[in-house]
Amino acid sequence: MTEHSLWRFSRALHRAINERQFTEIEPLIDEDVDWTIHGPVDLFPFFGARRGKAAVLEVIRQIADKVRVHRFDRESIMLGVEAASSMLRCSLTMLDTNKPVRLRVAHFAQFREGRLSSLRILVDSYELIEHAIGFPLRGRMIPVSA
Amino acid sequence: MTEHSLWRFSRALHRAINERQFTEIEPLIDEDVDWTIHGPVDLFPFFGARRGKAAVLEVIRQIADKVRVHRFDRESIMLGVEAASSMLRCSLTMLDTNKPVRLRVAHFAQFREGRLSSLRILVDSYELIEHAIGFPLRGRMIPVSA
Repeated sequence: MTEHSLWRFSRALHRAINERQFTEIEPLIDEDVDWTIHGPVDLFPFFGARRGKAAVLEVIRQIADKVRVHRFDRESIMLGVEAASSMLRCSLTMLDTNKPVRLRVAHFAQFREGRLSSLRILVDSYELIEHAIGFPLRGRMIPVSA
Repeated sequence: MTEHSLWRFSRALHRAINERQFTEIEPLIDEDVDWTIHGPVDLFPFFGARRGKAAVLEVIRQIADKVRVHRFDRESIMLGVEAASSMLRCSLTMLDTNKPVRLRVAHFAQFREGRLSSLRILVDSYELIEHAIGFPLRGRMIPVSA
């Protein structure tokens, strides 16, 4: 039994982001890949939609310039023949400020002949927004009554 | 072939929230269900973890008090034997202010004998935070440089 495409892609993505080593990930991306990270695009330019391998490699480089991944814990996972979805809790450092950020991410991935053909990522942007505005949101919000 | 548990649960949840009709959903929840909506708990009391059917029915009632669901589009989905994950784009109205909110949600569900035994939901809280603080975050944030 061969290894699921998710594990190979996940390892290569981790290396690309943390070591700026892109040779492993490049052959694991389909030429016509459809890629979206849902989140506040005007705040983080590497969010949003990308189409095609070149655009996706470029956005992975942008992420690598901004972020170092310390650890991630996979909380839920589903694996299909050429598909995978999971929910992760990630610990990152934002390189511009050297501040730690913890966030939760859900992804839905599809593969074609072992190469990533589609990726949809949802990021809980709460902590990222706090990071971007530079102070905690908590005390500044009026809670919706119970 | 019987219908996947997800469809039955999803319909019942929709009716529970919009029509406050809980008789359909009650038998579809496992006594020992493990339920979490990840998001800013101090802002929305119906976020967070719940354990057991009574606590989950109570939180569904709280959601029904606050929210009306207009439509949802399922953007990604994976179905397993007793598991399902999907990503949805939802259009809601917050009943306290009568304001529309659009948000994206990812969920991972597990079923035991057709009953929901585990649910993990990730909400992109961006629009919800804007709703809670009462003004758009966009213009007020310093973007992270490209």
